[in-house]
Amino acid sequence: MAQERIKELINKLADLKHENMYGEDFFLTWEKTYDEIMATFTVADILRALREENISTKIFDSGLGISLFRDNSTRTRFSFASACNLLGLAVQDLDEGKSQIAHGETVRETANMVSFMADAIGIRDDMYIGKGNAYMREVSQALKEGYEDGNLEQRPTLVNLQCDIDHPTQAMADMNHIIDTFGGVENLKGKKIAMTWAYSPSYGKPLSVPQGIIGLMSRFGMEVVLAHPEGYEIMPEVEEIARKQATESGGSFTKTNSMAEAFKDADIVYPKSWAPFAAMETRTELYGNGDFDGINKLEKELLAQNANHKDWECTEELMSTTKDGKALYMHCLPADITDVSCAEGEVAGSVFDRYRVPLYKEASHKPYIIAAMMFLSKIQDPEAKFEEFLAAAPKRFDK
Amino acid sequence: MAQERIKELINKLADLKHENMYGEDFFLTWEKTYDEIMATFTVADILRALREENISTKIFDSGLGISLFRDNSTRTRFSFASACNLLGLAVQDLDEGKSQIAHGETVRETANMVSFMADAIGIRDDMYIGKGNAYMREVSQALKEGYEDGNLEQRPTLVNLQCDIDHPTQAMADMNHIIDTFGGVENLKGKKIAMTWAYSPSYGKPLSVPQGIIGLMSRFGMEVVLAHPEGYEIMPEVEEIARKQATESGGSFTKTNSMAEAFKDADIVYPKSWAPFAAMETRTELYGNGDFDGINKLEKELLAQNANHKDWECTEELMSTTKDGKALYMHCLPADITDVSCAEGEVAGSVFDRYRVPLYKEASHKPYIIAAMMFLSKIQDPEAKFEEFLAAAPKRFDK
Amino acid sequence: MAQERIKELINKLADLKHENMYGEDFFLTWEKTYDEIMATFTVADILRALREENISTKIFDSGLGISLFRDNSTRTRFSFASACNLLGLAVQDLDEGKSQIAHGETVRETANMVSFMADAIGIRDDMYIGKGNAYMREVSQALKEGYEDGNLEQRPTLVNLQCDIDHPTQAMADMNHIIDTFGGVENLKGKKIAMTWAYSPSYGKPLSVPQGIIGLMSRFGMEVVLAHPEGYEIMPEVEEIARKQATESGGSFTKTNSMAEAFKDADIVYPKSWAPFAAMETRTELYGNGDFDGINKLEKELLAQNANHKDWECTEELMSTTKDGKALYMHCLPADITDVSCAEGEVAGSVFDRYRVPLYKEASHKPYIIAAMMFLSKIQDPEAKFEEFLAAAPKRFDK
Repeated sequence: MAQERIKELINKLADLKHENMYGEDFFLTWEKTYDEIMATFTVADILRALREENISTKIFDSGLGISLFRDNSTRTRFSFASACNLLGLAVQDLDEGKSQIAHGETVRETANMVSFMADAIGIRDDMYIGKGNAYMREVSQALKEGYEDGNLEQRPTLVNLQCDIDHPTQAMADMNHIIDTFGGVENLKGKKIAMTWAYSPSYGKPLSVPQGIIGLMSRFGMEVVLAHPEGYEIMPEVEEIARKQATESGGSFTKTNSMAEAFKDADIVYPKSWAPFAAMETRTELYGNGDFDGINKLEKELLAQNANHKDWECTEELMSTTKDGKALYMHCLPADITDVSCAEGEVAGSVFDRYRVPLYKEASHKPYIIAAMMFLSKIQDPEAKFEEFLAAAPKRFDK
Repeated sequence: MAQERIKELINKLADLKHENMYGEDFFLTWEKTYDEIMATFTVADILRALREENISTKIFDSGLGISLFRDNSTRTRFSFASACNLLGLAVQDLDEGKSQIAHGETVRETANMVSFMADAIGIRDDMYIGKGNAYMREVSQALKEGYEDGNLEQRPTLVNLQCDIDHPTQAMADMNHIIDTFGGVENLKGKKIAMTWAYSPSYGKPLSVPQGIIGLMSRFGMEVVLAHPEGYEIMPEVEEIARKQATESGGSFTKTNSMAEAFKDADIVYPKSWAPFAAMETRTELYGNGDFDGINKLEKELLAQNANHKDWECTEELMSTTKDGKALYMHCLPADITDVSCAEGEVAGSVFDRYRVPLYKEASHKPYIIAAMMFLSKIQDPEAKFEEFLAAAPKRFDK
Repeated sequence: MAQERIKELINKLADLKHENMYGEDFFLTWEKTYDEIMATFTVADILRALREENISTKIFDSGLGISLFRDNSTRTRFSFASACNLLGLAVQDLDEGKSQIAHGETVRETANMVSFMADAIGIRDDMYIGKGNAYMREVSQALKEGYEDGNLEQRPTLVNLQCDIDHPTQAMADMNHIIDTFGGVENLKGKKIAMTWAYSPSYGKPLSVPQGIIGLMSRFGMEVVLAHPEGYEIMPEVEEIARKQATESGGSFTKTNSMAEAFKDADIVYPKSWAPFAAMETRTELYGNGDFDGINKLEKELLAQNANHKDWECTEELMSTTKDGKALYMHCLPADITDVSCAEGEVAGSVFDRYRVPLYKEASHKPYIIAAMMFLSKIQDPEAKFEEFLAAAPKRFDK
């Protein structure tokens, strides 16, 4: 039965045009075609189904997966490590603290020096506007040249594990969770999804989540609503993309400054704090100038600004205004939970509690999404490779 | 010949009732039956013998082993890593420093978020009385629920790598060393083992070693003596367990405030510093209240208290009072060695030196004990699996 | 064709006397015979060629490779990790920060405690004169004893990843790059190589690179020139070795205080900053005495001394004086590049730029050199093992 389902998924994959993903990196979801996005979900589903059948999907006998994080991270780090492990790569962390990057070494050189035996590199660099994605492109270009020059025997596939613009592995995992929950992508047309700001006692949370969500969810014919208090604008370029994609997909993209309006009749809600784009740009400048007094001042201003919007909380009352009072509540985790992780936060404790199982399920997609991105970049004929796995059925765990 | 010995061990294992270990965690030795304890030693011995025969015992083709340490550790970290590697798991460290745990994330969430592809998790949390073991139970419960809810495809086996109550992997490794040294568990009846406090210039060493030792060694018909200066009491609950077990096994559990009395005619001595239970309880409270002045004050008091007992040193003179002057000297390492690692310490340099080889041998059991705990939790029919290994004899090192 | 080339390399290896490398460590290049050095290059070339043919060279199914770094390092850490991965070992880092080494634990004990399942250990300890290599010998001796005493089931091979005296993996990678560039070791007789000091705005760079270079390059009949300003002497013992070897190999070893003289008609130039040997000895003493004021004072003096020699830069003008203006420019990386990584540095930006591809190629040899050192120590009949690999051709990446 599971075998049947996997065969169906392989057939589904064969119907999608994904050959241009071969040999390519994954930077931003909106650079990928609809078919490529769907192929990524499908490969993720196949990898998961194979693992559930105790079939190993190691395509590498040896090789390294490099994780480069410019910010602390538990979940993303483990997701990347899990994805690498699933495909047979050993993870090596490239911590700035541990390494010489901090000593003025050029990006190009480091990228090459660590990659002689690397098949994949995952980068998280979401702190500074205008920097993270640009840095990834630089690394990718360096690796491409290193490969072409014959210094690298293989070109490592780069996966964007979160940048200043997009958080593709998060948005893709979220979307696959939505597809699962609603029983197929074909059921999403006309569904209302509210990506809304929410109050948090901390500040400066990255914009990549809301941007990633509207940049992806606008491709499936849904009514995408972005809600936030005045002053919490996100990157206008991403809004533009969402608007365009929504139109093309037969859905809509709208904005509001009312959380209530966003929640009203929503099928899906995603209340989550973020920092104003303009403030993040300022912060990036202040850091660039080493102006730490300015940064402290900005922090205080932002916290004061946040405190004006404590009513932006995902309460039971708000939840009851959603479609049948039963909208799917989503979050990238960890959430600021009122009376649990903080006094006043993004979401009421009882709401969070009710959705814990689906929230964990949502998160469980990420390792497979990352693995799928690498798989599609590495394997020229993924359908054939999956058939091979099914036929040989190498055991992951030899019970 | 080695093959014969392995077959004998497999037969021995078959005679032990160990089926309830399947799918279970390892928290405290006294929660396991005598047969389960013996099965763990036997599996450890088989794993070691197979490795010595260059037979690979990888049961996992991929999968993660997560190490979560709330305290620095070389030995335990490497023991866990070795055990994981022996069974085929890749280790991922979950450092609080590196991760977001420190940012108020709930235990339940983190446990699930890191475990999507984890088959084992080893936790060391021995710093605060009433916290470590409780934390492990919380993690275990979260993983059980995560598995039952379908968020985790497998339930990671939890191994207690040291908590506030017990240090099962240490005590088990120590016990296996004793069994080896005395030529079999059947030779231990009536043997005298002295678990005694010893002076150290540092303070606050965990109670889990003496507690683990009396909590385990009291099950084999030995005369277990716990010795310490007044004021260095350990957890009374564990003493109670030792007393009960000693009676049941036909041995004894006694206490004394004299090191000389403990050493007199002892077959085994385990002199090792620890902090008074009451002081550790106070420290836990002070930390809870963030009372760092109080902590500093307590430190000074404890060091002053220790200094009153510099005569609690394992000297040649004391050793000469043991059975034939040849008691087995044990330590979990690293020891405070007089004139080597400190001016005045737990043990005289010449005593330590004479026992270096056995001490390293003692330590060498730990990776296999940890692997055995995981193996018995993972493999439903370990005897059959070992027969398979013997028959196929996959090479660990393809010379 | 690749197969033919690999077979030729295997034949070449068979002609070299390398059996004494079996079971041995790699401390200093000049302790190895000429044949052993050539065997290491040849094995490195074979391992690389096999990987390029997508043939896995995993000789270990499980086992640990331990990296012990007493200094930050990106490149060497990744090179070691790559080498371990290539042969099938999982890397475990032994950070002093993370571990208890800092707490007065003896070298011997730690070496044993971490090595129960370790097949290789790579150590970088280059900070203090008289310490690094001595420390490695101590570790090696401890592991030998641990193995002989039966505490370790295997003796881990120690690889010197940089010490106070030599940097064998760097010098060997560099030499293999030279051999490649000049089309064979037989073409090196009479070639002039200039190992010259160069200005850097930082100070205290290790001496192991220039020492390693003259200690190895003097064995191939080349004219080795060591150039530095007065006061930047290196270890006299290593100069003596270079002098002796140069004579024996039909080349020469000379010294000069003129960068221009060294560059004149050179076939190869290696301009690189280092600290005066005498100053490094003083620093070691100051650290030993915990004299941090003295260290600060020394730093200032050294920086001032450096600043007197800003004209020691590898400029286009100097490059034009080399053989046909086309000497091979070498560096261990990262270089201090004028106007790129600093205002005034070791090399002009345009020179560095022109040699970037060869520089990366130079660096790419290191993982294979490290793997070759381990391979020759582990495998008794490497030629037979390589024939096996060729015949079975296990895939590294199952595309």
